[in-house]
Amino acid sequence: MTPNINQPDPFVAALTTVLGDASVVRDASVASAHAGDWSEAARCTPGIVVFPRTPQQVAVTLEICGRFRRRVVVQGGLTGLAGGATPREGEVALSLSKLDTIEEIDTIGGTATVQAGVILEELQRHVEEEGWYFPLDLGARGSCQIGGNAAVNAGGNRVIRFGTMRDMVLGLEVALPDGRLLSMLNRVTKNTTGVDLKHLFIGSEGTLGVITRLVIKLSPQPANACTALCELPSFDAATRLVRDARARLPGLSAFEVMWDDFMVAAREIQTLRPAFDAPAPVYALMETLGTDEAGERQQLEAFLADAFDRGLVADAIVAQSMDDAQRLWAYRETVGELLSHLKPHAAFDVGVPMAAMERFVDSTRKALTQQFPHQRHLFFGHIGDGNLHVLSGPHDSAEDLHRVEDLVYRAVADVGGSISAEHGIGVVKRDFLHHSRSADEIALMQEIKNLLDPAGVLNAGRIL
Amino acid sequence: MTPNINQPDPFVAALTTVLGDASVVRDASVASAHAGDWSEAARCTPGIVVFPRTPQQVAVTLEICGRFRRRVVVQGGLTGLAGGATPREGEVALSLSKLDTIEEIDTIGGTATVQAGVILEELQRHVEEEGWYFPLDLGARGSCQIGGNAAVNAGGNRVIRFGTMRDMVLGLEVALPDGRLLSMLNRVTKNTTGVDLKHLFIGSEGTLGVITRLVIKLSPQPANACTALCELPSFDAATRLVRDARARLPGLSAFEVMWDDFMVAAREIQTLRPAFDAPAPVYALMETLGTDEAGERQQLEAFLADAFDRGLVADAIVAQSMDDAQRLWAYRETVGELLSHLKPHAAFDVGVPMAAMERFVDSTRKALTQQFPHQRHLFFGHIGDGNLHVLSGPHDSAEDLHRVEDLVYRAVADVGGSISAEHGIGVVKRDFLHHSRSADEIALMQEIKNLLDPAGVLNAGRIL
Repeated sequence: MTPNINQPDPFVAALTTVLGDASVVRDASVASAHAGDWSEAARCTPGIVVFPRTPQQVAVTLEICGRFRRRVVVQGGLTGLAGGATPREGEVALSLSKLDTIEEIDTIGGTATVQAGVILEELQRHVEEEGWYFPLDLGARGSCQIGGNAAVNAGGNRVIRFGTMRDMVLGLEVALPDGRLLSMLNRVTKNTTGVDLKHLFIGSEGTLGVITRLVIKLSPQPANACTALCELPSFDAATRLVRDARARLPGLSAFEVMWDDFMVAAREIQTLRPAFDAPAPVYALMETLGTDEAGERQQLEAFLADAFDRGLVADAIVAQSMDDAQRLWAYRETVGELLSHLKPHAAFDVGVPMAAMERFVDSTRKALTQQFPHQRHLFFGHIGDGNLHVLSGPHDSAEDLHRVEDLVYRAVADVGGSISAEHGIGVVKRDFLHHSRSADEIALMQEIKNLLDPAGVLNAGRIL
Repeated sequence: MTPNINQPDPFVAALTTVLGDASVVRDASVASAHAGDWSEAARCTPGIVVFPRTPQQVAVTLEICGRFRRRVVVQGGLTGLAGGATPREGEVALSLSKLDTIEEIDTIGGTATVQAGVILEELQRHVEEEGWYFPLDLGARGSCQIGGNAAVNAGGNRVIRFGTMRDMVLGLEVALPDGRLLSMLNRVTKNTTGVDLKHLFIGSEGTLGVITRLVIKLSPQPANACTALCELPSFDAATRLVRDARARLPGLSAFEVMWDDFMVAAREIQTLRPAFDAPAPVYALMETLGTDEAGERQQLEAFLADAFDRGLVADAIVAQSMDDAQRLWAYRETVGELLSHLKPHAAFDVGVPMAAMERFVDSTRKALTQQFPHQRHLFFGHIGDGNLHVLSGPHDSAEDLHRVEDLVYRAVADVGGSISAEHGIGVVKRDFLHHSRSADEIALMQEIKNLLDPAGVLNAGRIL
C-alpha cells in the first residue's frame, strides 16, 4: 500500500521528530554510491537514509526501527568487500558519517576517544600531530571509518607487529537494537571484570549493535621505517625467514609474500621494471619500524646477509630512501589495479595455518589452472599472519565465479583455515560460513543474535 | 534427607557410570587444600570431586549436574586470588587436573594445542624444547593451569610486550552447561567469520562454560634478557620513561614500578641491600628480550644514558649477568613474602589510566595513611599496562578490611579504572563489580549467563 502523500508515514515522522528534518533523507541514491562493487546487480537504493548526530540518536533510531519493525543497515565508509553495508530491499540506511568527532587524545596514557564515523586517515593524522601513532593501516584509509574498522576487526599490513583492530580497542560504546546505549568505554589496558562484552561487537559486522564511540590504544611514534624486497628460493624458505625475522627483528612490522605470477601481473599492469635480474618463485617484502635509522637498516642488512648465507634469501634490495621504499611497496600495492583489471573476479581473503600454506597454494593453483586455464590466479598475502589473498579472473559467468568460490573455500576448510581473515562475511560469504564455523558455533551465534535483536531488524541477512 | 546408605545416590551413580569409579571421589578434603587463602573461614570441603579424563567427560559431567540441578565449581590449579575455585556449600568440584596432555606443538606455524589442565610451567618448558617460546609468565607458574589462565585472562610481567592471555589464545574448546562440547579450535591468526565466540569464555572465570582444550599462539624464542633497575626523580618521570622505552626499545618486555615504601618493606623482609646509595621516590625495573646480547645491552645502556641526560632517570644499574638480573628482580619478587607478612591484608589488583595514576596513588595513600596510620600501604605494579597493585595490612578486623576495600574501589571508580586488572572478580570482588561495570553491562552479562546456563549450576555466585 502506498502511503497517502498528504498523510506522513508515522515511521518517518517518528524519525524526524527525534533526528530533525535535515538528518532524515528520503530517496537518497547517494547513500550507496561508494559501496564496494562485490555485486553491482544486487545493489539497491535505500528508501530512507538517516544521519544521527549523537550516539544517543543512533540508539533512538534503532529503537524506532524496532518499534516499526523496519529493517536497518549500518553504513560507515562504504569500503567493505563483503557487501555488508549495501542496502537490501526495504532497508533503512543508518549512516555514521556525522559522528565524526575526535573527542580526546590522551597524550599521557596513549589513548584516543573517537566517534565511530571518524575517517581512519584523519585519526592517523591527528594522533601523529599529538606525538603518537595509530598503527592500523589499510588501502581504504582515506574513506573507511574507525567504527567500521572495529565492526569487521580490520587487519592490514602491520598485524604481525600490532595485531588487528581488536587488539587496539580498549573500550566501546554501542547502541543496541532495543534502544539502550551500552557504555563500555574502558580506558585501561587490563580489565578482568567479568565477560569482556566489547568482543561481542568487534568483528560481528554490526549485526548485534551499532558502535558509536571507541577508546583506541595508541602506540609510540616510530621515527623511521626500513624496507627490503627479497627473492626467495622457495615458500619453505619464506616460512623459515618469517620465523627468524620475528625472533631477531623486534621492529618487524610487515612481512608480505608474493608469488611470481603475482609479480609478473603487477609489473605488466603498472609497467614496473623487474626488481631483480632473474625471477624467483616467491618474493618477500619486509618492513621494520624503529627510531634509530642507521641502526635499524644495519640490523636488517645483517639479518638478510645471514639469511643469504643460510640459503633462505637468493637476493635482496634494501631501500636507502623513502622513494626506494615506495618503489618496493609499489609491487604489493598494485592490488587495486589488479582487482579492476581482472573483473569480473573472485577475490579471496583466507586464513591458512602456516604448516599447510604451501600445500594449499600448490594444490589450489593447480586445480584452478586445470579448470580455468585462460584466467589468471594470483597468490599473495600477509604471510606472517597466515593471511592469504587469492585473486582469480576474469570470469564471465556467475556460475564460474561460484565454482571458483566453492573450490577455494572447500580447500580452506580441508586445512582448517578461515574463509575470511580480515574482510568479514557480509552477504557475500554467508553461504560458506559453515566451512569455518561448526554447527554449534553458528547455533550459538544465532542465539546471541536473537538475544540482542529478537525482531531481527539490524543488518539482517549479514553473517547468518 | 540423608540418602539411604544401601541405595546409591542416583546423581553419583550417573557420574560414576560415565566417568568410572576412580574419577568420582567423595568427601575429598584434598581438593581445596591448595586453594588461595583469600578467606580461610569461607572455605568448605566439596562433598564430591570429579576428575574427567577427556573433554567429552567434562561436557557429560555438566549435563548430569544440570539434570540433577547440582551446582558445580570448576577447579584448575587452585592458585586464583579471587576465591572463584573455592567450593561453596553443596557444590560438586570439577577438577581439570587429569586433562593434562600437550597434544601438539606445531613448530612451523608456532602454535600449541593443549588440554586445559596442563601446568603453565610444563607448557613453557615443552615449548622451549621445540625452539619456541610461550611468553605468559606469573608467580604461580608451577601450579596454575593453562585453562585457568585463559578463564581469568591472566596477565603477568610481560603484558607490555606480549599482551594478556587473551592475546595468546587462537582457539578454544569449551564444555557448555547443556552438555555440548563447543569446538572453536581455530589455528589461524586472523579469522573474521562472525562473532568471535571464544572471547565470551576468556576472562569470564568459568561462569559460561568450562574450557577443555586450547590452541595457543607461540612466540619466537628470545636468546637473552637484559635487565635494569632505575631510580626515578618522580612518577611523572616514570610515565615519560615508559613512553620513550616503548618507542625506542622494541624488545621492551617489562616495565615494573615500585614506590619507595614498597622498596623499604621489600628490603626489610628479604634483608636485601639497598641497590642505590640514596633513596628515590620511585623505582623502575626494566627488561628487554632480544637475540643479540651485546647489542641489546648497548641499546638499553644508551637509552638510559639519554634518559639520565634528560633528567628522567637519577641512577641506574644494568645487569651484567643472569645473577645480576635475579638480584634486581628480587625486590619485585618479594611480593609473596610481603603478602604473608602483612596478613590479614587487603590486596588490590586495579587498572588505572596513566594520566590519573599519580593522583590516584597520592590521594589513596594519603587517605589510607590517615585512616590506618599503623598499617603499611604499599604501591607497585605493571605500570606499562596501567596495572597497579596495592597491599595494605595487617588489618585485624573484617570491618577494617572492608573499609580499606571500599576506599580503594571508590577511588578506582572515580578515575574510570578497573577493580580487577588480572585476578578476576570471583566471589571476593563481586560486591564491587558495579564500580567498573555499568548497570547495562551487568544486565547484559546476566542475560548471557541465563542464555548459556539457565539453571545456574556452573560457578554460581562468581562474578555476578
